[in-house]
Amino acid sequence: MWQLFQFPLCPFSRKVRLLLGEKGVGYDLVRESPWLRRDEFLDMNPAGQTPVVAGEGGITLIHSQAICEYFEETCPRPPMIVGSATERAEIRRLVALFDETVHNEVVAPLMSERMLKRIVLRTSPDAKALREAMKIANTHLDYVDWLLDHRRWLAGAVLSLADLAAAAQISVADYLGGIDWRGHERTKEWYAALKSRPSFRPLLSERMEIVTPPPHYDKVDF
Amino acid sequence: MWQLFQFPLCPFSRKVRLLLGEKGVGYDLVRESPWLRRDEFLDMNPAGQTPVVAGEGGITLIHSQAICEYFEETCPRPPMIVGSATERAEIRRLVALFDETVHNEVVAPLMSERMLKRIVLRTSPDAKALREAMKIANTHLDYVDWLLDHRRWLAGAVLSLADLAAAAQISVADYLGGIDWRGHERTKEWYAALKSRPSFRPLLSERMEIVTPPPHYDKVDF
Ligand SMILES: N[C@@H](CCC(=O)N[C@@H](CS)C(=O)NCC(=O)O)C(=O)O
Ligand SMILES: N[C@@H](CCC(=O)N[C@@H](CS)C(=O)NCC(=O)O)C(=O)O
Repeated sequence: MWQLFQFPLCPFSRKVRLLLGEKGVGYDLVRESPWLRRDEFLDMNPAGQTPVVAGEGGITLIHSQAICEYFEETCPRPPMIVGSATERAEIRRLVALFDETVHNEVVAPLMSERMLKRIVLRTSPDAKALREAMKIANTHLDYVDWLLDHRRWLAGAVLSLADLAAAAQISVADYLGGIDWRGHERTKEWYAALKSRPSFRPLLSERMEIVTPPPHYDKVDF
Repeated sequence: MWQLFQFPLCPFSRKVRLLLGEKGVGYDLVRESPWLRRDEFLDMNPAGQTPVVAGEGGITLIHSQAICEYFEETCPRPPMIVGSATERAEIRRLVALFDETVHNEVVAPLMSERMLKRIVLRTSPDAKALREAMKIANTHLDYVDWLLDHRRWLAGAVLSLADLAAAAQISVADYLGGIDWRGHERTKEWYAALKSRPSFRPLLSERMEIVTPPPHYDKVDF
């Protein structure tokens, strides 16, 4: 059985979990708090980051995108990086947009202000940084609205890793109270459809210690 | 013919150029300075970042890793994400280590202090930020030394995209005077071997306006 080293609010681990869920690959969760910089974890991944997937025969997979590509290659059904080479490039562009731009501008500041400061540093959040992150979140949701005006799913006609990567980042931002859904009807419908998938249910029911999500967080109808 | 939108010191464009060079794919360079936020460029890539590759038939490829995966799929010879699924995961882990960790901790601060402040902001660099970046560069080179004590190339027995990604980031840091090669003999030999490859020669001969590299920068024997 695969082991996934993660913590409940790691968006990159959520992306991997959604992919494994869609493909029906079983795994055990191992709780890892990368900010503790545990020696045994650093031996496994010198970068000290979650997610890490460990398997039988001493296989260690590191970095969410390397992990997703691995399972796409070894468990190709249903395909999540799907289509022609050009369509696959569009999926990977969008995955990177959420993993990098949306993460750095929105999710990382929210995690730092509302999770790490609370759990690790025990200081209060910076209201200005939070406001800025939520403002940028709004412009990214505008872009998702626009994509969904042109396409059924984010990268095209079928569900792909782009949707999973986007939902992973958005769900962590939503848990941390960083998403104002008003005026984003298209994105809300798309997110409701994802929330009701069996791959998403276990994620929505988990809680991070101390930090509580808003009441709408785990509701499919929100 | 493909067009690659880039500027001489963009490490992600260098990774793409090295890959295209190794695969013998022809392309024209189009100079793009993303900090100018040119409207036509933002229409092409809403993220506003280089590299972008544009091709016949209106294909637009965005994000260096999406671009590399595209050419790996469409021009598989010689393979650069090579080997079994596990070996490919190790290549992608190392690519991400250089594109993300090494870039953020070393190359991005060097570019900001020694290139953007010079060309765009016309202010002087922050000596403390530069010292810190060079100190971290040294610990990353220690890790490369260690990898090369165990493997012929970074990810294993054969040249792969991991070597190209690493050389791309290191070459930009080296151009900006951020690499102290003393004590890194193994990495130096590996880098000399890469520097002498035909795919690398054109990159080393190009210059960014105003910013001059140290004399050893383009020498294979350094
Ligand atoms: N791009 C990496 C990012 C991984 C990442 O940033 N993980 C965070 C948790 S969400 C982490 O471990 N941070 C601790 C650290 O960087 O030291 C991936 O996709 O796997
Ligand atoms: N992870 C992206 C990074 C691209 C990137 O950061 N490009 C820089 C130039 S080296 C850029 O365009 N920066 C301008 C900006 O971010 O606004 C990739 O691999 O393509």
